[in-house]
Amino acid sequence: MLIATPQSMHFAAALPLQSGKAIRDYDLSFETYGELNADHSNAVLVCHALNASHHVAGVYKGQDKSEGWWDNMIGPGKPVDTNRFFVIGVNNLGSCFGSTGPMHINPETGRVYGADFPVVTVEDWVDSQARLLDALGISTLAAVLGGSLGGMQALSWALQYPQRVRHAVVVASAPNLTAENIAFNEVARRAIVTDPDFHGGHFYQHGVTPKRGLRIARMIGHITYLSDDVMNEKFGRQLRRALDEVASGDGSYHYSTLDVEFEIESYLRYQGDKFAEYFDANTYLLITRALDYFDPARAFGGNLSQALARATAKFLLVSFTTDWRFAPQRSREIVKALLNSRRHLSYAEIDAPHGHDAFLLDDVRYIGVMRSYFESIAKELDGTEASAGASA
Amino acid sequence: MLIATPQSMHFAAALPLQSGKAIRDYDLSFETYGELNADHSNAVLVCHALNASHHVAGVYKGQDKSEGWWDNMIGPGKPVDTNRFFVIGVNNLGSCFGSTGPMHINPETGRVYGADFPVVTVEDWVDSQARLLDALGISTLAAVLGGSLGGMQALSWALQYPQRVRHAVVVASAPNLTAENIAFNEVARRAIVTDPDFHGGHFYQHGVTPKRGLRIARMIGHITYLSDDVMNEKFGRQLRRALDEVASGDGSYHYSTLDVEFEIESYLRYQGDKFAEYFDANTYLLITRALDYFDPARAFGGNLSQALARATAKFLLVSFTTDWRFAPQRSREIVKALLNSRRHLSYAEIDAPHGHDAFLLDDVRYIGVMRSYFESIAKELDGTEASAGASA
Repeated sequence: MLIATPQSMHFAAALPLQSGKAIRDYDLSFETYGELNADHSNAVLVCHALNASHHVAGVYKGQDKSEGWWDNMIGPGKPVDTNRFFVIGVNNLGSCFGSTGPMHINPETGRVYGADFPVVTVEDWVDSQARLLDALGISTLAAVLGGSLGGMQALSWALQYPQRVRHAVVVASAPNLTAENIAFNEVARRAIVTDPDFHGGHFYQHGVTPKRGLRIARMIGHITYLSDDVMNEKFGRQLRRALDEVASGDGSYHYSTLDVEFEIESYLRYQGDKFAEYFDANTYLLITRALDYFDPARAFGGNLSQALARATAKFLLVSFTTDWRFAPQRSREIVKALLNSRRHLSYAEIDAPHGHDAFLLDDVRYIGVMRSYFESIAKELDGTEASAGASA
Repeated sequence: MLIATPQSMHFAAALPLQSGKAIRDYDLSFETYGELNADHSNAVLVCHALNASHHVAGVYKGQDKSEGWWDNMIGPGKPVDTNRFFVIGVNNLGSCFGSTGPMHINPETGRVYGADFPVVTVEDWVDSQARLLDALGISTLAAVLGGSLGGMQALSWALQYPQRVRHAVVVASAPNLTAENIAFNEVARRAIVTDPDFHGGHFYQHGVTPKRGLRIARMIGHITYLSDDVMNEKFGRQLRRALDEVASGDGSYHYSTLDVEFEIESYLRYQGDKFAEYFDANTYLLITRALDYFDPARAFGGNLSQALARATAKFLLVSFTTDWRFAPQRSREIVKALLNSRRHLSYAEIDAPHGHDAFLLDDVRYIGVMRSYFESIAKELDGTEASAGASA
């Protein structure tokens, strides 16, 4: 069993951000799985999505079961085989799982950042990840890999550091958000920001957290992660109890606007409650904004082909038919733009029922595509290592 | 120009409700347009959806422009021609536009109903509308007509009072909500109920209204009323100002998690603010619950064909291709069930870009379908009136 050990790296030097601001004296939490090979060529960076972290795979000492968010994908003998690859998971700046975020002390003021944490973008995250790789002695990645918002980081890696990326694996992602995507993010943010316990983002000093808003945000999120079909299949219109069950002394039935009546309500409330206990409200704002802003074509007048022409990596793109948050159509836009630039790419559109969540699940065809792609990367590496050995 | 005059009817006798409870001493607000003919055969009942009212068409004295929610559909020379038909718009029980609702006095207690207003269902609304028709001397409707939740009422009319309905026109509706529909309703309700200003539904006596929750509810609603395409077309990823516009003395740019950055955010916030000023929070809970509960097939073990076999009306069903809230698939379920029962029906699937909102808009083909259907009803009436005259 893969044993994971959280690590942390301190960066004293200021990191310039896209906003024109900078952040200094920050820490990045990360984990690594497998061994870096002699020529440092087998590193795979895994980028995380909204509520995930650097804990991608494996178990912490004493755990029976992995809580890694991509443990089905990464480990010994798994599609991203840690017997072949040196895998790095890193928690993004502004997150709430160890890397410096809004709940930490701002060295400029000596006070908790709160709402003053600078706005960070996908590009900023990639820059911070590049510094981490520098510190780890990794100049080139065998692959950068991510799903959803993680896929945007993988795509951006290929644009910001084309020479440092051999393969970019972009799963269930998009070249930017649609208006509808932004709309869902905005409603979630408004729910958080207008929660009286938000206190303009400085709730830490009030000893409260805006849980009402976080619950609503998470409920909205969950609706968009699942497909209509899988929701119907899992919950349908199943009532928690029969409508004609007598409720009270006057012989009336259970009809209620406030109680949980349908199974889907129970599921959403549970997910909302759980999330509100551990997630940071300012982080939610930061991460959804990073999603909103991401748009590599913006600087090219909306021309994605021109934007992606900088990339030299080989690409694997994967989408899922029932994903309506980041629909296959959006992956196809990336595919088309890469084809226009005559880039090397593979694309798999997986017929899976689970909506956006499919990228975290065990669809056989999806897992198979990932496995064979990483096997081919490993073979490329064997070739390189062999020739490196021969020339030595 | 059609002049509308709001009217009100008092009902002293208790109306038994599906919940086993009852409501007495209630009022229904309504409006009528056109003239009831001699044999009272030309009445058309219009049922409203979530946030609409009895003010369906025309202007109030002194108004230049109609605020009727279906003024494009109903009036002199319009598809539902008030020169031929006597059209009735009625505000549903529990609403906040005149009919008795949660903001009124409960005769049992002498206090404002608030959260104690009984849960009302689509079936209850139909029963209350039937009593109004009784009072107006109308035994049979030439047609009952509604979109969305209004369409559910039209469908339920054909099942509860088959002998009183000649035509049922069901637009952009469904035989029940999907789990996803219920999920959106539930998030909206949670936003309202967890607003500290909700006070368990008894906010009136605190002199506040749960506006934060209502805003969120309305924003969620608006996302589901529009299609992804029309949102992209109307708002796209349009930023309110350039990202590289310098914001402050330190030379940094406008990047913000709290400010409005994209046009879609501005639109949603505006819609939310407007709604929170006029809509009642308890009404929102009641109406979304009526949507959730509606499921005429439930009593038939989910067999919609059996459920609809009671209907004797002729049906027109209309759906819109980009409506993902009440997708064409849902209308087709009704069509299929009616075909199984060998009912007389017409069905139009309109290729319109506007999503669920299309049922309120001026799509040429849609308006044409409605016009020709109501012309055929008018011709039927002419035949009946002529033969009635001949036999007299």
